[in-house]
Amino acid sequence: MHTTTTPIPISFAPLDTLPAVIRSGGVEADRCLVVTDEHVAALYGDAVCNSLALKKFEPHLIVLPPGEATKSQDRLAEIYNRALAWGIERGTPLVAFGGGVVGDLAGFAAATLLRGIPLFQVPTTLVAQVDSSIGGKTGINHTTGKNLIGAFYRPTGILTDPGLLKSLPTREWTSGLAEVIKHGLIADDALFTELETQADALFDRNESVVERIVPRAAAVKVRIVREDEFETGLRTILNFGHTFAHAIEKVAGYGEYTHGEAVAAGMRAALHLSEHTAPGFDAERADRIVRRIPVPPGLASLSIADLMDAMNLDKKVRRGSVRLVLLDRIGHAYVASDIPSSLVKKAWAFAQEAIG
Amino acid sequence: MHTTTTPIPISFAPLDTLPAVIRSGGVEADRCLVVTDEHVAALYGDAVCNSLALKKFEPHLIVLPPGEATKSQDRLAEIYNRALAWGIERGTPLVAFGGGVVGDLAGFAAATLLRGIPLFQVPTTLVAQVDSSIGGKTGINHTTGKNLIGAFYRPTGILTDPGLLKSLPTREWTSGLAEVIKHGLIADDALFTELETQADALFDRNESVVERIVPRAAAVKVRIVREDEFETGLRTILNFGHTFAHAIEKVAGYGEYTHGEAVAAGMRAALHLSEHTAPGFDAERADRIVRRIPVPPGLASLSIADLMDAMNLDKKVRRGSVRLVLLDRIGHAYVASDIPSSLVKKAWAFAQEAIG
Repeated sequence: MHTTTTPIPISFAPLDTLPAVIRSGGVEADRCLVVTDEHVAALYGDAVCNSLALKKFEPHLIVLPPGEATKSQDRLAEIYNRALAWGIERGTPLVAFGGGVVGDLAGFAAATLLRGIPLFQVPTTLVAQVDSSIGGKTGINHTTGKNLIGAFYRPTGILTDPGLLKSLPTREWTSGLAEVIKHGLIADDALFTELETQADALFDRNESVVERIVPRAAAVKVRIVREDEFETGLRTILNFGHTFAHAIEKVAGYGEYTHGEAVAAGMRAALHLSEHTAPGFDAERADRIVRRIPVPPGLASLSIADLMDAMNLDKKVRRGSVRLVLLDRIGHAYVASDIPSSLVKKAWAFAQEAIG
Repeated sequence: MHTTTTPIPISFAPLDTLPAVIRSGGVEADRCLVVTDEHVAALYGDAVCNSLALKKFEPHLIVLPPGEATKSQDRLAEIYNRALAWGIERGTPLVAFGGGVVGDLAGFAAATLLRGIPLFQVPTTLVAQVDSSIGGKTGINHTTGKNLIGAFYRPTGILTDPGLLKSLPTREWTSGLAEVIKHGLIADDALFTELETQADALFDRNESVVERIVPRAAAVKVRIVREDEFETGLRTILNFGHTFAHAIEKVAGYGEYTHGEAVAAGMRAALHLSEHTAPGFDAERADRIVRRIPVPPGLASLSIADLMDAMNLDKKVRRGSVRLVLLDRIGHAYVASDIPSSLVKKAWAFAQEAIG
């Protein structure tokens, strides 16, 4: 329905280039809102405020608790209250400085304050750098499901500094690799092959491998989003493993597992179904790297009945039938519909076995 | 910055054509959310539900209290809760059936549920039919100001039935005439001349005059919005009288006066400034019809100091200087900046004198 030819303005550069990135987005303001979480503020809050102040942007920092529970209507209202009390105008930029939670929540605040103020995404986690900061999805959770309230809102600029990933906890790093691997699996077999051959260095967070892989994995997302900004077609393939992952997050409670851990388990289930549906597909080759992502053992004991139930509330449901993204080869995904629920159950069992 | 060539899909037709309007928007769903208020539900709730059910749309009616106070975060959350509990999918249409409050609130809910579901505006008041249902502005109020939270979101379709205006209370009718007159003043001198010559019939709500004037007044808005969808330029002229009006609404408390009453008083202030700034401008000719709109006398005793203060919180402020839309002739508006505050005070005094 909608396609776009406007390039997605993403810079791979150090954090201190932020003022230049904001100016190059056409912003004339002399003030800047920065929304972040406590972890990021402790590590980089001073650095980002100093670099803004140096270039004549008066910064105003809003620091929120870390974690998925922050993506709530209450925290959104808190950003509204604090931003409006500080005083913003339509040209005041908002910097979403953090991982996926901050990017989604602060992005949605930017989309809806004064009907939209300039948004700059500065992702600090691997999953945010290669995935969630790109593509304009913003939003919050609702008690009935994740991301059920939100908007498509294009950032005016994205500043991605892979150097920030050094400080990431190990669990966040390996979780982020789930999305990196996903991008290879669904749309870039050369990237997947590189991930395979560099797997040890990648899991060890070798600096030069990280610097090379992050832009390549981000490029897959950019390419798909440019072809389908509003998720009416191709973009669906980015949901590989995600229909399962959303069910896991819903059943276990948001925040119990990282999104990447849920995606890793979900991809295993999807690989199992892919092999069944496209018999020539080498699921074992794909699974070899996916299963290197550590997943907490509790995931193996979630009730499959509950997980099946949860899939029916997923946003990707259309007219009652669950659609799933599957692979027919490494580097190529497609959308399958009308998969018998008995097969979906078996896929869940496979994913849980692999964990146990 | 942004212009659009996509036509705005507006149908002037009876209410019972709603199912056809929804289908022609490409909607395949067999269910339909309808958000309305208690007044509209009492008059037309059964009619709209029956016409939907007849054409195989299962309707789900959400009825809210009437009035500006409904444009709140709490009512928005109520729509989210009820829509998600009922169960919606991305293709489920939402019909905003009511005046400006319902259109803005329900429109914003449609913009943000599942990151956007198809929205159909069915305006039931004069101000909604000629103005607020057109142009994609949606949103709610915040304690610090009106419409401070919202989004630009294009309706998939607009169904405008001038026949619905028969049941409008007189105060709503004359209030709506403020926006009709505004459209003539800012961009259509032929429309203004017709309003002048038909003024008695118009204020009496003569049916054939109404049927002719509503589409013409709506067309002015359509033309301006098509040239400037995201309010980066021309669209500003629609704010003629509105910077004053928003100050009145803020100082008096939302709901004390109708939006149209505030706009009528605001236009008087703006006409006074227009005459000062463009001495050849015939403010008396314009004011002759504007002052036919009844305005409650309490408006004359609002504190001018408070009104001046309130203007500094207006969304249209840019980098500290208040911009105002003025006229240099009937049918032509322009944006003036750096108007001395002493003049603005005099304009307030003029508007209040005219009421007293």
